Amino acid sequence: MADNLTSRKQDYAQWYNDLVLKGGLAEHSDVRGCMVIKPYGFALWENMRDVLDKMFKETGHQNAYFPLFIPKSYLSKEASHVEGFAKECAVVTHYRLKNDPNGNGVIVDPEAKLEEELIVRPTSETIIWSTYKGWIQSYRDLPILVNQWANVVRWEMRTRLFLRTAEFLWQEGHTAHATKEEAIAETEQMLDVYAKFVEEYMALPVIKGVKTANERFAGAEDTYCIEALMQDGKALQAGTSHFLGQNFAKAFDVKFADKNNNVEYVWATSWGVSTRLIGALIMAHSDDEGLVMPPRIAPLQVVIVPIYNKDAEARQKIDDKANALVKELRAQGIRVKYDNDDTTRPGWKFAEYELRGVPVRIALGARDLENNVAEVARRDEKTKASVSLDGLTGHVATLLEEIQNNMYNKALSFRNENITKVDSWDAFVKTLDEKGGFVSSHWDGTPETEDKIKELTKATIRCIPLNNEQEAGACVLTGKPSTQRVLFARAY
Amino acid sequence: MADNLTSRKQDYAQWYNDLVLKGGLAEHSDVRGCMVIKPYGFALWENMRDVLDKMFKETGHQNAYFPLFIPKSYLSKEASHVEGFAKECAVVTHYRLKNDPNGNGVIVDPEAKLEEELIVRPTSETIIWSTYKGWIQSYRDLPILVNQWANVVRWEMRTRLFLRTAEFLWQEGHTAHATKEEAIAETEQMLDVYAKFVEEYMALPVIKGVKTANERFAGAEDTYCIEALMQDGKALQAGTSHFLGQNFAKAFDVKFADKNNNVEYVWATSWGVSTRLIGALIMAHSDDEGLVMPPRIAPLQVVIVPIYNKDAEARQKIDDKANALVKELRAQGIRVKYDNDDTTRPGWKFAEYELRGVPVRIALGARDLENNVAEVARRDEKTKASVSLDGLTGHVATLLEEIQNNMYNKALSFRNENITKVDSWDAFVKTLDEKGGFVSSHWDGTPETEDKIKELTKATIRCIPLNNEQEAGACVLTGKPSTQRVLFARAY
Repeated sequence: MADNLTSRKQDYAQWYNDLVLKGGLAEHSDVRGCMVIKPYGFALWENMRDVLDKMFKETGHQNAYFPLFIPKSYLSKEASHVEGFAKECAVVTHYRLKNDPNGNGVIVDPEAKLEEELIVRPTSETIIWSTYKGWIQSYRDLPILVNQWANVVRWEMRTRLFLRTAEFLWQEGHTAHATKEEAIAETEQMLDVYAKFVEEYMALPVIKGVKTANERFAGAEDTYCIEALMQDGKALQAGTSHFLGQNFAKAFDVKFADKNNNVEYVWATSWGVSTRLIGALIMAHSDDEGLVMPPRIAPLQVVIVPIYNKDAEARQKIDDKANALVKELRAQGIRVKYDNDDTTRPGWKFAEYELRGVPVRIALGARDLENNVAEVARRDEKTKASVSLDGLTGHVATLLEEIQNNMYNKALSFRNENITKVDSWDAFVKTLDEKGGFVSSHWDGTPETEDKIKELTKATIRCIPLNNEQEAGACVLTGKPSTQRVLFARAY
Repeated sequence: MADNLTSRKQDYAQWYNDLVLKGGLAEHSDVRGCMVIKPYGFALWENMRDVLDKMFKETGHQNAYFPLFIPKSYLSKEASHVEGFAKECAVVTHYRLKNDPNGNGVIVDPEAKLEEELIVRPTSETIIWSTYKGWIQSYRDLPILVNQWANVVRWEMRTRLFLRTAEFLWQEGHTAHATKEEAIAETEQMLDVYAKFVEEYMALPVIKGVKTANERFAGAEDTYCIEALMQDGKALQAGTSHFLGQNFAKAFDVKFADKNNNVEYVWATSWGVSTRLIGALIMAHSDDEGLVMPPRIAPLQVVIVPIYNKDAEARQKIDDKANALVKELRAQGIRVKYDNDDTTRPGWKFAEYELRGVPVRIALGARDLENNVAEVARRDEKTKASVSLDGLTGHVATLLEEIQNNMYNKALSFRNENITKVDSWDAFVKTLDEKGGFVSSHWDGTPETEDKIKELTKATIRCIPLNNEQEAGACVLTGKPSTQRVLFARAY
């Protein structure tokens, strides 16, 4: 299979697309911009979702579900929100079809026009805060710590599987608090949850920071983010957590009475990650032979492939041993498959599971059994070793953890090698063009300079890192005074 | 709290609505016909979903995700499907809003009109079979056993929370097979899965059967169903499993080459249950004091309420014992909460958890501790008993199972008492009007008679039970010969 893959050097974008399609993760649908997430891709998303969901619940959140549709006027209630989200969206204008009197199938019934158009949610702050108005009267009703797993739609003209699609799956947390401090603490807590998830489960190091005003969520006072680095030197925003101040409470008139019966607007946060994370996972870890899945969230962690010869008795012995191994591994909570499909050869299977990024492959032949060993191959390093069948289960469990750590460390080294301190404009442009990665430079703090740099280089400020070192310097473009470096990069 | 509830006798529909709203399950949203599923209701749905999802996976199915939107023309490809589903639906006609030049917020941009309108999926057969066309070439690609958890929209003029809403959550399985026999076996298997789930987890007995042509899914050759009985004597369809024949394969030209290289159309099934099941759960089990949750899927199985007196030392002892109990119960996998909120009194809490249907309530006071007992109340029978603290955890675990069984048996008795064999038209009408429930009568097998009966009585044929006894008789309306009884009822 690997022969048909484009290599990263040849064409990084095409390599990515090949992996998504040939790795069986997703494909384009007949509906412009909407993807089909195939079973293998969805199993990956389920694993990610389950881990995150557990982390949300452990931090006191509950799930709920809000309407898919948002009345058009709601988007306008928060001034900057409408600027950000009311542009490219799916608009429902009618609620009925009828048979075409000319016999050409069905047509929209012009008499079934909605009084007010409905927008398919691009994000749910407005519909949720209009709901919270009914839930909140007093401080006893706070905090509200709610999350929703949902599909959202943002009409996009140029789409890429997982990275930018018109419809995507995500979770959106929406919390309501009595005080500003509590809301900010929640915003920061959820950023930490995201960082922990992406680092410990996706094996992908991230930089925690805050966005500049230009890159802030439409309606937020502050947008916190985690930024990851892809193998082509471009950054990818892996999650955001927004401190929304009282903006949505004011837009939807949500107030509460505190213990002293003073009436105040409620404080809000929202935070989300999406199926875009799958794009990050692929671009950070995979290689020219295919996907490389971090064991902790891999849909399949171990595959066992029999190496049959023509001796029926030997085949039976291999099957017996493999089935026993499957049982043992499953008892350890390891996701394993025994692929004894007779219609494909071992070599084909090896390539197929390499393409799909299964972390560990065990090959088992008659001679191996005689020697009481199996051949164990790891996907990340593409090395293999002969391992005793005694204690193989323990070996595999340890190996999975080792692969997880190795993938993280490899990504961490790469990321750290690709943060470059730059102090002149020429070096700034040269670094972006020749090396890529994060460029750590001084910036004069104005949106105008940020815009100008974006216009000249396509690089944006990915974030101002949390706990950023303060140092005097001169803006890399304007030379004006600056108090700290920020991280620039070209980004997905 | 219970004082504010309408009783079943007073107004069954209002009682239901009260329970949904005051029980904290769901509420109407600002968007016509769309509901907000609140955290308590969503936790119930999550428990139901998790059990079903496990059952689907154990029967070899995988999850995937298909687009929210369906091109209008797709609905027309299967002739009877379009009749059933292309009527009341949400139609997306535009993909952009813009600022109103007159300054009145945002308006639909007339220049952003879609070439072909998109329908928000009412069900996904068409988009999925257009996808399967790309997945299936040979018998090696079959079967495809895929399920999707999704939101769907069917525009409804008169909506009721959970029972009939414009948007609802469901799962839809869509499978593809090489033979008719295999597809029928799958259809039947999934009906069995649904029946098992509803009976064993929701504690609700069901009758398995097939629908008559009138009640069949639009596009199916046969619709299998499970029918349950509500306390007001109306039936509710709790799940359907459709044998689709080759209808969608033909509509989307999905063929496969068999082992002998003969090319044939693929055979299909689809099957689904939805958040409507929550409506069934409420109406089957709850009483005038509120919800009654079956323990196996109850969001909360046990609540512990302290009965404090003014003695601080006694309070501490109660807290210590309660916290130890919580730990023990959780270790047994029991979902338990210790409600020591100081701002409400025990009596208020008792009523509140009764309203919410928590199966077991444990009250713990200073004197109880002295006597080494706790007061254990069960929600289903509203009885309470003093139980020794030694072995309380085991007692509670057993009690939860007992409640589960008792709820099932109670519903089963009620259902069985409300299946009435009727052989004359007068008795048919009288039974429907005065007793309700299922009426088991002979029918001449024609859609015309079924329509006429519906027109006269509002009763429909709920199903022809599987393995139905064959007996000669005369149609209850027309007197024409009949070979078997079928089950009529008024239904949700």
